[in-house]
Amino acid sequence: MPMKKFINDPKNLTRELLEGFALAYSDKVKLVSEKLVVRAVSKPPDKVALVTLGGAGHEPALSGFVGQGMLDVSVVGDIFAAPAGPKVFEALRLANRSAGVLLVVLNHAGDVMASHIAMQMAKKAGLNVKMILTHEDIAPGADAPATERRGLVGCIPLYKVAGAAAEQGRSLDEVFAVAERYNNNMATLGVALKSATHPATGQSIFELGDDEMEIGMGQHGEAGTGRSKMRSADETADIMLAQLLDAVKAKQGDKVFVMINGCGGTTLMELYIIMRRVGQVLQQKGIALARARVGEFLTVQEMAGFQMHVAKVDDELVQLLDAPCDAPYWGES
Amino acid sequence: MPMKKFINDPKNLTRELLEGFALAYSDKVKLVSEKLVVRAVSKPPDKVALVTLGGAGHEPALSGFVGQGMLDVSVVGDIFAAPAGPKVFEALRLANRSAGVLLVVLNHAGDVMASHIAMQMAKKAGLNVKMILTHEDIAPGADAPATERRGLVGCIPLYKVAGAAAEQGRSLDEVFAVAERYNNNMATLGVALKSATHPATGQSIFELGDDEMEIGMGQHGEAGTGRSKMRSADETADIMLAQLLDAVKAKQGDKVFVMINGCGGTTLMELYIIMRRVGQVLQQKGIALARARVGEFLTVQEMAGFQMHVAKVDDELVQLLDAPCDAPYWGES
Repeated sequence: MPMKKFINDPKNLTRELLEGFALAYSDKVKLVSEKLVVRAVSKPPDKVALVTLGGAGHEPALSGFVGQGMLDVSVVGDIFAAPAGPKVFEALRLANRSAGVLLVVLNHAGDVMASHIAMQMAKKAGLNVKMILTHEDIAPGADAPATERRGLVGCIPLYKVAGAAAEQGRSLDEVFAVAERYNNNMATLGVALKSATHPATGQSIFELGDDEMEIGMGQHGEAGTGRSKMRSADETADIMLAQLLDAVKAKQGDKVFVMINGCGGTTLMELYIIMRRVGQVLQQKGIALARARVGEFLTVQEMAGFQMHVAKVDDELVQLLDAPCDAPYWGES
Repeated sequence: MPMKKFINDPKNLTRELLEGFALAYSDKVKLVSEKLVVRAVSKPPDKVALVTLGGAGHEPALSGFVGQGMLDVSVVGDIFAAPAGPKVFEALRLANRSAGVLLVVLNHAGDVMASHIAMQMAKKAGLNVKMILTHEDIAPGADAPATERRGLVGCIPLYKVAGAAAEQGRSLDEVFAVAERYNNNMATLGVALKSATHPATGQSIFELGDDEMEIGMGQHGEAGTGRSKMRSADETADIMLAQLLDAVKAKQGDKVFVMINGCGGTTLMELYIIMRRVGQVLQQKGIALARARVGEFLTVQEMAGFQMHVAKVDDELVQLLDAPCDAPYWGES
């Protein structure tokens, strides 16, 4: 039985999807050296460059966030697979300019390994690169060591604040400090309802019972903190938000940025209903909802579920979130 | 067995989703009189106002396109149901200003009936309203009478060009003329792979075999032009694009705007692969791809499938597509 996806030869998925993306947004991005997505502008400004990397299959992440005010280069691996270290180095060399480069890495084993290889090569080549690792998944516990906590959708608002700071002409140390401030004040938790089909193999990436959900599941089917029977939207939101607010130590009078990120098969309708409850709880606790985004930013094919992301923000981070940006999938500030 | 959706009481779906949406984007939109989504700005400019209407369940459509440069008011019905005529009239009265109002209606029986009632009430009340009906579905044949052709995702770029014209201070007749020019040069065709679950009833909205697809299916499971076995992305794109280019009479030297609109359960990866083929075919035919948008604009819950939209555009329409816009889901121009 054929897979119910609109594809051609599964071997060419990544190449074909990148070609289609670059074609649709040719005024903003272009594809170079096959798997590097860069800004379309012919001569980028001399500012700190932002580079990231990750496997395909999570569209619009990560390449959908290349654009003015966000990323300079996205290095794409095959479906759910990290790109090779030398490819990441190629991106660093391409992005390199006098102001330096910030490499943003999501904590997944393959991505981390590729980044370390690339950083070594960059050091030998004399490039001025700093690396930051996102690891905001609180499924293993907010106090678990960073190495055990995965990088989830929080990389995207982090690109936004760091990208806006870079666009303002700040130094590499300053851009790094902004990114690190966001990194240290964010937390994300996922929940899964239905698996996705791996588009190259046609296999489910995990199994869940017809009446089960799993909070804490990672974005490749990595185990979470336990399965339960299906809960209502409000019950689910309450459980997740309590853990997230605890993790970022948000208290009365604080301000937060919230992202409800659909994983692919969960409707925006549901994400809005979750968002409504988040807003109610924040109001009860006297925590201000500074800004929010609801939509699909980092997906897992057609998996049903979402990631709830909360970051404690200050006025400067809000301004950076609001700054102009033309990346195809950030949307308007 | 519980439905695998994050909801609370199915009776409150529309109210809750609208509250969540308005909360997330409170800097841009607000909810008034329960089911009217309006711009958040306290005093709207005296320009032609754009009003539209339609059932919920298709998020982000239609209310996700309220914002500067697009809609002024969106009137929301219950899931897949038109709002009542008097509610639409209330929206017209709310939007009314000296420059007049353009009411954009998608051709679906309930929406059309509600609009006719509202237009009669507006006439009696002395409001200056013009109405435009979108009916760009070519599934019944490009030459079928307008009454048999449904309004699909094409309403969204139509809001964009008309909204940009209104923002420039053009008269109601001029804004209507821009909308009508887009309306007369656009065509859309859908394809379905898997049904969605109606979130209030838990029922599938249609049935399709495990190896079947249906080109021409409407956005509520309305029958299309025939089922076939699953085809590859390129084969599907070729069949659909040929009919669309024929319908808009696009020929060598023309320019088109293309939208690949995911219906909910189809990944962006697949939509990009479709887009790639569209770009290849356009290039072969010497038709320029002026602009494109790939994403979820008008969904049918978690239905798998997409709508391919093509409009023949001139330089002015491209400028209007590019004009500034802060609606939450149009994305950056």
